[in-house]
Amino acid sequence: MEIGFIGFGLIGGSLAMIWKNNHGDFTITAYNYHEKPSDELLKAKADGVIDDITNDIGVIAKSDMIVLAAPVMANVEYLKMLAPLVGPDTLITDVGSSKAVITKTAIESGLSKIFIGGHPMAGSEKTGYSSGSVDLFKNAWYFLTPNEVTEERKLSFLQKLVAETGANCVIAEPSKHDRITAAVSHLPHLASAALTDTVAEEDLSEDMAKYAAGGFRDTTRIASSSPAMWRDICLSNPEAVADMLTKYIHKLNAVREMVLAGDGNGITELFNESREYRATLSEDKRVKK
Amino acid sequence: MEIGFIGFGLIGGSLAMIWKNNHGDFTITAYNYHEKPSDELLKAKADGVIDDITNDIGVIAKSDMIVLAAPVMANVEYLKMLAPLVGPDTLITDVGSSKAVITKTAIESGLSKIFIGGHPMAGSEKTGYSSGSVDLFKNAWYFLTPNEVTEERKLSFLQKLVAETGANCVIAEPSKHDRITAAVSHLPHLASAALTDTVAEEDLSEDMAKYAAGGFRDTTRIASSSPAMWRDICLSNPEAVADMLTKYIHKLNAVREMVLAGDGNGITELFNESREYRATLSEDKRVKK
Repeated sequence: MEIGFIGFGLIGGSLAMIWKNNHGDFTITAYNYHEKPSDELLKAKADGVIDDITNDIGVIAKSDMIVLAAPVMANVEYLKMLAPLVGPDTLITDVGSSKAVITKTAIESGLSKIFIGGHPMAGSEKTGYSSGSVDLFKNAWYFLTPNEVTEERKLSFLQKLVAETGANCVIAEPSKHDRITAAVSHLPHLASAALTDTVAEEDLSEDMAKYAAGGFRDTTRIASSSPAMWRDICLSNPEAVADMLTKYIHKLNAVREMVLAGDGNGITELFNESREYRATLSEDKRVKK
Repeated sequence: MEIGFIGFGLIGGSLAMIWKNNHGDFTITAYNYHEKPSDELLKAKADGVIDDITNDIGVIAKSDMIVLAAPVMANVEYLKMLAPLVGPDTLITDVGSSKAVITKTAIESGLSKIFIGGHPMAGSEKTGYSSGSVDLFKNAWYFLTPNEVTEERKLSFLQKLVAETGANCVIAEPSKHDRITAAVSHLPHLASAALTDTVAEEDLSEDMAKYAAGGFRDTTRIASSSPAMWRDICLSNPEAVADMLTKYIHKLNAVREMVLAGDGNGITELFNESREYRATLSEDKRVKK
């Protein structure tokens, strides 16, 4: 069994660690964009997590399974590059945070039978193979988004590999996956960044930052997320994200009307409902490093 | 020196503890709305923090200093009730989270010379006198909002009492105070509650809550704040809050346009700017209980 990785950061590196640990007979090759292998890849090779490093995409295309673990929009480009090079027995999966765009690309490139989208909902603050861990996915959710023509054999093989990570596998339509992540992840990131930016602009002449307390800090923590990563994620899920933004803006306009009208019941109801929903969130059981 | 408290929860109770500790000669009387004193007030009396409990507002009106520490809109009503009862040597202050409405009430009630608005930015998760502490205000900001006719003597007396709490006193115009709190506190609370509510409505048929991770949790933590308290705060600062909501909605509309247009540079800039502003927030040095 030969596995090729394109992208070998926190997620890709951690998956390789787990699978190499469990399957001494797997040969893992990592793609390197530059001629000179990166220090991270050399370390992974020294650690025995990968067997080979190549900067030839044609070598990766010959793998039995290919894992696209580069930034989400780069995965889309790599999928297009692989399309003419791979055979019908290959299995291609990815680990990106949105599934509609890459699934559309797979279908348009004639890869619908061999591509199964994946999204492990784990790790975003630390980066790189060196921050990876075999525990990264424990108790996390791992979405797989097969389509109608996905071969059962390929799906069950991938499900078995996902089970080895300790994650809970969830099978969903790509568009359903993207609506969920737009709501619970992409919208919150944009809302948080937009909130921080709005206050920053208000603060130009005011010296407000020093009065910001814990509430502001918490609400805006994810506004410090990696700009490049979140640019990619938001742009790879435009329809669902724009839809959630529309709904959020609509809600905020209603709140603004309540404030101006002195509508105490409306504001109370807003906080009651949001308090109630928050109480339904289950405990976060993922392993903290 | 006689001090009368109207409202004796976390903030009022903690102030009384500090001042009674430092000044054995202060007589502190707490107003009780009902005829039968609450258990909290009886405990405060047993603790020696207060000397008397009264349900006669006329008794409170005879104090040298009156502290309004009820919910912010109730303080406004109490100020109106006190107006015909107090003399020119009285000093009235409050501890509410917004200053424009109560200052306007003070001016309209002929109290501009004897009223000095106050706002200690401390404690909101625990409530009640029993949760109070002499450390509650240490390293917190304590706004005082005097006006042009405030007597210097009254202001410096109040500043001295504020200094005893360990808080850093900030003198500001009421409207400036309200713009600052609207930006760094009131808007974030409404944005967080509206975000939670938007996702809750989207979730009706989706079962999304279980996929929400740490980012969603943090961003929506303050959406679980006390509905009654936050209704009051938002309604007592309508102009500044509505203005900030308008700016936030404007920003979100721009973000939505970027997402739909695939404007990667715009999204990157949004995250870069918000990351940069967040890095300017100073460390929170308040005492945690």
